[in-house]
Amino acid sequence: MHILVTNDDGIMAPGLLALAQAMRDLGKVSILAPDRNWSASGHVKTLDRPLRVKEVILNDGSTALTSDGAPSDCVSLALLGLLPEKVDLVVSGINPNANVGHDVTYSGTVTAAMEAVIGGLPGVAVSLDSPENHLGLIDYLPAATIARQIVQALLNNEELPPDVLLNVNIPYLPQDQIKGIRITRQGTRVYRSRLDSREDPRHKPYYWIGGDAPIGIPEKGTDVGALMEGYVSVTPLQLDLTAYNILPVLGTWGL
Amino acid sequence: MHILVTNDDGIMAPGLLALAQAMRDLGKVSILAPDRNWSASGHVKTLDRPLRVKEVILNDGSTALTSDGAPSDCVSLALLGLLPEKVDLVVSGINPNANVGHDVTYSGTVTAAMEAVIGGLPGVAVSLDSPENHLGLIDYLPAATIARQIVQALLNNEELPPDVLLNVNIPYLPQDQIKGIRITRQGTRVYRSRLDSREDPRHKPYYWIGGDAPIGIPEKGTDVGALMEGYVSVTPLQLDLTAYNILPVLGTWGL
Repeated sequence: MHILVTNDDGIMAPGLLALAQAMRDLGKVSILAPDRNWSASGHVKTLDRPLRVKEVILNDGSTALTSDGAPSDCVSLALLGLLPEKVDLVVSGINPNANVGHDVTYSGTVTAAMEAVIGGLPGVAVSLDSPENHLGLIDYLPAATIARQIVQALLNNEELPPDVLLNVNIPYLPQDQIKGIRITRQGTRVYRSRLDSREDPRHKPYYWIGGDAPIGIPEKGTDVGALMEGYVSVTPLQLDLTAYNILPVLGTWGL
Repeated sequence: MHILVTNDDGIMAPGLLALAQAMRDLGKVSILAPDRNWSASGHVKTLDRPLRVKEVILNDGSTALTSDGAPSDCVSLALLGLLPEKVDLVVSGINPNANVGHDVTYSGTVTAAMEAVIGGLPGVAVSLDSPENHLGLIDYLPAATIARQIVQALLNNEELPPDVLLNVNIPYLPQDQIKGIRITRQGTRVYRSRLDSREDPRHKPYYWIGGDAPIGIPEKGTDVGALMEGYVSVTPLQLDLTAYNILPVLGTWGL
């Protein structure tokens, strides 16, 4: 079992190292991750410039590869042959914040797992629901342990169809306070972005997409709801976005 | 009716102007589009830097706004209040190449329409299936006429649920050779990317994501199939990516 580990926070992110260490119990691990933070950068395929790759030493003394491409580019590079040994599975994370609701199309963590699925491999995205403005070091160990458990279950049950990835979100709680694992659907977050208009020192305007952090609607059966109740959320996501129930409606438009 | 027009090829792209001109028959049009090409750059929310906006004159003498953000950022800025007048509808395009199959999560054209839907507005993405290496000027007029017809139908039939956008793809044919409009599901493209490893003048390696253009699988009922038969494809896409039919399978994993 050869597992590629990547993330969207960059090669030196502690969540990446925690995930890689947990995955080493399940097989050989290769790491190829961006050389900078790509959060909320979406599903990228870099075609207009070449990509560089270099070897780095992680904080536990192990070696890893880093690239100046996006998380999905890292997966592409690895699967297209940059890694000499065939990859069997891609695991992305651990993102320090949850990726739930509409976050999934923005998220570099999730789109890296999408890229794995497009490349024909199982993909798992792992995110930790730590507070947006958490001070101090985040403890990734409980999340890494749960990620290992879920990936082990995936390896034991090869029943995922080829266009489905797993989006895993873990509440930020000590291991013994996590209530269990729930299989969920994608929920809803209400974004509360506001336009923050400012003037630079030369009196020219510039704009921040500001405002408050999104609020999740804690519906039962959703990713948001599971996290709020202290459960790990596992959501199967598919790359077929067709709104099938709308097809008959559009048929009545007389187009 | 106040229509925001954007694209992912940049403010001076001829497909944007053709689309804006067609939309002017349906209401007031505002344009806010990126100042550069963002193709295959995915669904972006720029939070780590401020955005600039400036006014420019388009080739038909009309004014427009351009920003250094991504297509989805342009939609965000407009909807968050940069445009003083409330926007009713967002139309994105006309992209010179089709956005079908797995393209939809990479596509700046489609993710701009996603951003509209997340912001609570109807969103329509319009792409033209012109050849990848088309020489000379592309004729956007037939596509713009069809885009107007489809947006008019959307305005006449306010039955789209709030999380659904329309992904429109138009075959590159003269108007009188387009056979009609088909309501489709998202099809499949086979990506044929290959890793192209090179050495720079200082003998350091770099990598292009190269290879051949993807091939669409012309299944009946899909976006790819409709285009290949000479029909316009209209696919309703939803932002709920949950693979509902897999939920029971995951329930048997003993997690």
